[in-house]
Amino acid sequence: MWFQRQIQLHARARGFHLITREIVENIPEIGDIQIGLINLFIQHTSASLTLNENADPTVRQDFESFFNRAVPENEHYYRHTDEGPDDLPAHLKSSLLGSSLTIPISHGRLALGTWQGIYLCEHRNHGGSRRLLVTLNGE
Amino acid sequence: MWFQRQIQLHARARGFHLITREIVENIPEIGDIQIGLINLFIQHTSASLTLNENADPTVRQDFESFFNRAVPENEHYYRHTDEGPDDLPAHLKSSLLGSSLTIPISHGRLALGTWQGIYLCEHRNHGGSRRLLVTLNGE
Amino acid sequence: MWFQRQIQLHARARGFHLITREIVENIPEIGDIQIGLINLFIQHTSASLTLNENADPTVRQDFESFFNRAVPENEHYYRHTDEGPDDLPAHLKSSLLGSSLTIPISHGRLALGTWQGIYLCEHRNHGGSRRLLVTLNGE
Repeated sequence: MWFQRQIQLHARARGFHLITREIVENIPEIGDIQIGLINLFIQHTSASLTLNENADPTVRQDFESFFNRAVPENEHYYRHTDEGPDDLPAHLKSSLLGSSLTIPISHGRLALGTWQGIYLCEHRNHGGSRRLLVTLNGE
Repeated sequence: MWFQRQIQLHARARGFHLITREIVENIPEIGDIQIGLINLFIQHTSASLTLNENADPTVRQDFESFFNRAVPENEHYYRHTDEGPDDLPAHLKSSLLGSSLTIPISHGRLALGTWQGIYLCEHRNHGGSRRLLVTLNGE
Repeated sequence: MWFQRQIQLHARARGFHLITREIVENIPEIGDIQIGLINLFIQHTSASLTLNENADPTVRQDFESFFNRAVPENEHYYRHTDEGPDDLPAHLKSSLLGSSLTIPISHGRLALGTWQGIYLCEHRNHGGSRRLLVTLNGE
């Protein structure tokens, strides 16, 4: 069984956002799969996806603080600067964290660990709505 | 053909550990697949998986040294600190390296390059046993 | 439908290189798939793959500058140094960026966003020709 659907995420502030529930609610077809994989693919180059701690919101705040220090704005050597100081750092963060996730499905559910949640990583100040392409494959 | 199995890895010290052999021995079903993909998924947020050099153990030691400098403990701005100084850095390292690997299978074998091995990246001081969910798909 | 092919990329200079066209031209079988996934897997430990901005070449130059600062050569604490100052940093960059990409296919085309391109990230000074194993699965 193959299945594909585009999800349009509403615009979010720069930072790290838990979107597990939004994914699950938009893809009820997960419930039909005993063994399979779901691929989440973000069709942008300045936002990304990762898995991490789903409980304490300070983890997501610390992620934003850390990545802003690890990938600073306004470095003198940056050449791609026309779209603002947050643009090139957003591209770099996107490649450090990655554009897609592949998550196993078991018995009709995402087989995430107890503490794992899906993060949308919004790296732009005004990134707007983001498009995910979700591909499901299983039996 | 779909196949899924959970592997419980024994507890390892903080650092980078080669687990290729352990994966292959636990999943003899790889041998039945001519063309396919294997997904290794770690169900935790403070350990991760990556592929890298499988020969010289100093590479894995240097990885531990590098990531400890790139993602330091005890930064004044960290807010998620209740579970100890190694906890938030472990979450950050986990997202930098990633929670899953997808590796091609050819003619009944993992199609790794000559020097590629599978690393378990243990980012906690006392992470304990780690659970991997392995999903195999192919023909 | 499963399909697998090895692609031998010609040697490139150290840096970040757009290879989307080369992939698409070598895998015309993408055109036969309505819904599916393509996995690109680099069988090396000192080069990597990522998705990012496909238009302005200064993005790729800035990537090289950033990663050279984030993962410096000749750190006093590196132990794996026999193969030259670019070797261990190449391994580290490879794990930060990742060895493989999984990209959805829709209606016979890679379902990349408008600005997304596939980068070969060559981290060695003289990395030589690089081998990709491409695995296609879909219907």
